Amino acid sequence: MSKITLILGGARSGKSTYAEQRCLPNGRLKKRYIATAQIWDEETRERVNKHKDRRAQNWDVTEEVFKDLSQHLLKTEQPSQITLVDCLTLWLTNEMLSNEKEDINPVIDTFVENIAKLKQPYVFVSNEVGMGIVPENALARKFRDAQGRLNQKVAKVANQVIFVAAGLPLKLK
Amino acid sequence: MSKITLILGGARSGKSTYAEQRCLPNGRLKKRYIATAQIWDEETRERVNKHKDRRAQNWDVTEEVFKDLSQHLLKTEQPSQITLVDCLTLWLTNEMLSNEKEDINPVIDTFVENIAKLKQPYVFVSNEVGMGIVPENALARKFRDAQGRLNQKVAKVANQVIFVAAGLPLKLK
Amino acid sequence: MSKITLILGGARSGKSTYAEQRCLPNGRLKKRYIATAQIWDEETRERVNKHKDRRAQNWDVTEEVFKDLSQHLLKTEQPSQITLVDCLTLWLTNEMLSNEKEDINPVIDTFVENIAKLKQPYVFVSNEVGMGIVPENALARKFRDAQGRLNQKVAKVANQVIFVAAGLPLKLK
Repeated sequence: MSKITLILGGARSGKSTYAEQRCLPNGRLKKRYIATAQIWDEETRERVNKHKDRRAQNWDVTEEVFKDLSQHLLKTEQPSQITLVDCLTLWLTNEMLSNEKEDINPVIDTFVENIAKLKQPYVFVSNEVGMGIVPENALARKFRDAQGRLNQKVAKVANQVIFVAAGLPLKLK
Repeated sequence: MSKITLILGGARSGKSTYAEQRCLPNGRLKKRYIATAQIWDEETRERVNKHKDRRAQNWDVTEEVFKDLSQHLLKTEQPSQITLVDCLTLWLTNEMLSNEKEDINPVIDTFVENIAKLKQPYVFVSNEVGMGIVPENALARKFRDAQGRLNQKVAKVANQVIFVAAGLPLKLK
Repeated sequence: MSKITLILGGARSGKSTYAEQRCLPNGRLKKRYIATAQIWDEETRERVNKHKDRRAQNWDVTEEVFKDLSQHLLKTEQPSQITLVDCLTLWLTNEMLSNEKEDINPVIDTFVENIAKLKQPYVFVSNEVGMGIVPENALARKFRDAQGRLNQKVAKVANQVIFVAAGLPLKLK
């Protein structure tokens, strides 16, 4: 059985740092870091570069995966390896932007079915985006809905779900 | 004494599904579902229709109440009946849109006074909308303030308050 | 050693009222209230005046501090005094607006270093602003990032961190 941990939190909540602290002390396991951020602008480039510096020393393997994430995980998983995926929100953004007209629900369903088949330990980081006022922008509303559904479905197959606020964890499951 | 449960959560947090799961296993009680969603556009129509399909088989009574909700509850409550109201956010929206110039605070106060008089069990679903950046739109700020005050006041008279994130409950009271 | 409590919550979450209830029953201690709200418009003026009425009877000292908050705290702390600062979000706003071009990170770092040196009990109120959709406005994104970093860093030096939703506390630390 796979051992899935979902780390949920707002922007700048410290969720990535917390997720790294969960993965890194596992001395016996090989550590794999998967980044999903695509660089669209200067703001993202800066953030991504900071992340790269931080992770360089600590991880055995680092990969960039923008789409078809669960398919990649199924194909590449290895025994005695723990994988951190940071984050599902950027992966979902990539999937939605690459084909705005299609229904995103089948993509979410396939993702969840696939990760439920994984055998090694995984830590997924994801954003909470639904606790503000309804966005005026229709695409933002659509994204908010998709992200909420994804979080619910991943939480259902996860063994542990941790909510992070101000860098501090709160156990949901 | 009334037995009020408040289920609080963000958009697409799974709060409605969780609230239904709290109501439906009460075998001895008659189950009443009150929807507050008014249909303003296609997006809402689609969402409402999905909800209708889901609830048709499970509930003894379903009603649509857009305004004067607490007055309706006082007039219609029956022994051995549990009522789910989904949701206070849409009811508050209806009240605010129907008279944008008036102060919404007395409407909130009357609502809370009235529900404190109810004798049967009630589950109210409501949105958390205050954890994003300050909205640029003045009406959105006004709504955010009113929703926050409503949640605080209902929480005060409630016997149980549950926060839902990613479909998972967190007990606040 | 300083005894720092951080009260975190969304807009209209009841965090200020909760923070006051934490400070006021401390009979032996002198009570100081520090407001950070600068009046930019009618909306703020109304809110600030309500706050002033509420606090007038209960506090031994009230002060308004808009900038250089930690420096002020270091200079003015007195034995047997508990201080409520409401709130860090408005203080951070003041600092960012007073010089939009500068990097805010050193200001945050200095603040956290300074409050770690304080010896008396302090309660800081701060907003959670990162749980909505990514703001379209670049300054709003910048503020959201700064606020999130500030909350994380204050949480690290705090002895207690409480999350407030619908007026109800949830212990994070």
